Formats: sequence, structure tokens, C-alpha cells
Amino acid sequence: MLSKSKIKLITSLSHKKYRDESGLFVAESTKLVLDLMSEMECILLVATNDWLKTNSNIKADEIIEASESEFSKISNQKTPQGVLALFRKPNYSYDFDKISSRLSLALDDVQDPGNLGTIIRIADWFGVRNIFCSLHTADVYGAKTVQATMGALARVRVHYVNLADFLQKCSERELPIYGTFIDGENIYKEKSLSKNGIIVMGNEGNGIAQKTEKYVSKRLFIPNFPQGETTSESLNVGIATALVCAEFRRRNF
Amino acid sequence: MLSKSKIKLITSLSHKKYRDESGLFVAESTKLVLDLMSEMECILLVATNDWLKTNSNIKADEIIEASESEFSKISNQKTPQGVLALFRKPNYSYDFDKISSRLSLALDDVQDPGNLGTIIRIADWFGVRNIFCSLHTADVYGAKTVQATMGALARVRVHYVNLADFLQKCSERELPIYGTFIDGENIYKEKSLSKNGIIVMGNEGNGIAQKTEKYVSKRLFIPNFPQGETTSESLNVGIATALVCAEFRRRNF
Repeated sequence: MLSKSKIKLITSLSHKKYRDESGLFVAESTKLVLDLMSEMECILLVATNDWLKTNSNIKADEIIEASESEFSKISNQKTPQGVLALFRKPNYSYDFDKISSRLSLALDDVQDPGNLGTIIRIADWFGVRNIFCSLHTADVYGAKTVQATMGALARVRVHYVNLADFLQKCSERELPIYGTFIDGENIYKEKSLSKNGIIVMGNEGNGIAQKTEKYVSKRLFIPNFPQGETTSESLNVGIATALVCAEFRRRNF
Repeated sequence: MLSKSKIKLITSLSHKKYRDESGLFVAESTKLVLDLMSEMECILLVATNDWLKTNSNIKADEIIEASESEFSKISNQKTPQGVLALFRKPNYSYDFDKISSRLSLALDDVQDPGNLGTIIRIADWFGVRNIFCSLHTADVYGAKTVQATMGALARVRVHYVNLADFLQKCSERELPIYGTFIDGENIYKEKSLSKNGIIVMGNEGNGIAQKTEKYVSKRLFIPNFPQGETTSESLNVGIATALVCAEFRRRNF
């Protein structure tokens, strides 16, 4: 039985303010909840009787069985799968020694929750374990982003940082910092794509901000085909992230 | 002044049934309307006074000036840009001789309108001029897809065909037919990616159907990194299309 206070808590978490205050976020659907459960602390699981029967090994601080009609009050999904869970937002730390040997992503004010979710899924696919987001990037714990990650959120660590400060520190450590620009070098012809470093992806409308751009040590460009022909003016930031990550990894397959 | 019958016509076109009957579709926002106008027949343009002042060289069979409040009745956009146009759906023909020398995409029941729009934008970026959709693929002239193409719809020809029949004909002409499968060849190691042929992309949930699969002459696979590590189980079809097209084109940059 789902109490009114629990319903209130769950629905309040659609607002960033309450997610920040409580340090909690909501995830729905079986695969996502199970993926997150393996990595994060589940403080409350609400599920239908059917779901609990099929998933009997679940561990959560609190488990509440809800009827279908109770469930429909808290679900954000068009076709609810009968499970919703509250997780504690992880507080990841990072150290520059570890980052220095890896490839990471940095997002400079990516605004669309769906794009952010897609980028996390791509990072997961290409073995990028850390994403450093500027403070104005969309909130990764919003429902739309959480769902769009399809569970990749369990394996990719998302950090919110003062991006200029962060990149300055990377720069002081002589870490390569890549970004895509219209006047960049054709990524498919660029000889030195390292196994480590930071790939900066910019805002949907404005690209990489000037205060961020100054730390970019290697300017890249994703060419269209045939080169120079009239075409769509830009690629969606999710697509661009996939193409850049793929090219870095392809060199090392 | 926008008549009631015009408002009715415009709003009716949100249904595929009426788009099919009338042979018309709706596009909104300045860039999209201008891009489409260069390639398609605009039978009606509705715009605010401000928009018409800034875009005085417009050619359309009929131009109606609408007030902001009239405009809000017909617009599907959160922040309308003051222009909406009705275009005649193009009726593209194709001949196998031309297709044989080019790279084309085939979509096997791609369902999500946003994914379809993204794929058209990617095709445009990578110089793929023809997309052959199975009859159950999402309708390219629905508002969400049209908007998601960001004008690429003006440059990419989308055909609806009986996909199995179409691929059989391609196969008889010995055109290479590519598809992505979990047991395919690592696309980054595959030696023969031709400059021509058909790349088949599958449905979001079920991939490429069996009746389509039998025509695929080269099975490809987009590897994750590091290979074999637990990761997201699949890539979104838009992302996968981008990665496959990029790899075909990279070989010829």
C-alpha cells in the first residue's frame, strides 16, 4: 500500500529543486532499475505484485507492493512496466591521475535531456567512464535523461564541475583537450588522436563557449560528404559525440 | 485572414489519412520552410506580418497573412516562428541504373518519427540521396519527422516500397546489400565497404526482419569498446546509422 506521503515524495522528484534537497532520483522500467541497482543505493522500490513475483531477488531499503491503479499515479511512462525505484544520487569523486590515462567527455551546456541521455549511452558503448558537465548542462537525474540512458547511467560517472576550472587543471597536466569546430582539422585525417584526454562537446545552439574553447588544444571537424556540398548545417550533438568517440576508438581496435 | 476551412485543412494534416488523401503535408519554422521551398511545391504559406516583411521574396501558390493569435491556432511549435507552409508531397521515381552507382539507405520498419528525422539528416550529411523505407516505416510527412529533418528533407528522396521486392531486385543486379547484426563482421576491420550499394537499418526493437535479412550480402557489426565488456546492449538506430554511414564515407575521404 502506497501512502500519500510516499506518492508526494515520488512526484516531487520531477523537480530538480527537490532532487537536490533530498539527494534522490526516480527510475522506471525493469532493465533500468536492475542495472542501477547493481551500482547504486536503492532506498525505495515500488512494484506491482506481478513484477515482484518475477523479480524475487531484489534488494532495497524498502519495498512496497502497489496495485496497478496506485502505480499509475506515480508512473511517468506511457506503458508502465510495474516497477519504479528511488535511488540515492551518487557523489562521485575523481582524481586527475586516473583521468589522465583515460578518455573522458566534457559537456559545455548541453541543454536537451534526451541528448544528454543519448550521450551517456554512447559513452557507455565506447568505454568512456567519466563525463564532466558544466554547471548549466541539463540535470542527469531528471526523468527524461535517466530513462534515455537505458541503464548506461549505472556504468558512466557523471560529474558537474566548473568546466573552465576543470579544463585549466587538465591543461596544466598537459592532457590533450579536443573539441569540434567548423574550422577544425578533418578528424578522419588527423594523425594524433590519443588514447587519453578530454573530448569537449558544445551546446546545441552555440557550440563550445569562448571561455571553454581557449583550453582546447586540438580542433577537430567532422566532414560531410562529398565535402563542400550543401547539406544540413550541423549534426545533432548526440550524433556528433558518437562519431567522434567512434573515430578515437577505431584507431585502437 | 485565415478562414475556418483553411484552419481545418491545416489541422487535419496531423493525421496520416488526410495527408494521404490530399497529398499535402505541413512544415513550420523559417529554415525548414525556406529549404523545402527550393525543392518542393508550396501550395499555401501562412505567416505573420513580421515574417513576411523579413522574407519578401517568397513564392507560393497562395500567401495568407495571419495574426499572432490566428497563428497560435495552427502551430504545433512551442515557440512558433511565425511561418507555416503546406507542401505537395513529392512523388519520386527512381531507376536502378542510377541507384546502382550510389550508396543508399533502406529502413526496415523504423517506427519512431524522431529517429526517422534524424536518419534523414544523417543521410543528407553523408551524401546519401535516396532512402528506401518499408511500408510500415513511420510516415516521413508527419509533423515530428518533418521538423526533425531540419530541412534535410529537401535534399534526400524518401521512397516507400515493398522492401523485400526492392532488395530482391537490387540483389539480382548484384548490388552489395549491407546490414548490421550482432554476429556480423567488425565494420572497422571489414575490408570491402563499397562506394555503392544498400545499407539496411532495422526496427528499433526487432532489428532487421527475416524476410529482409535473406537479401543481405554482407553482415556488419559496430563493436563496442573495449570489446566484450558489459555495456548498453544496443545503439539507437539513428546513432547506428550515423556510425555506419561515417565508416563507408571515411574510406573514401
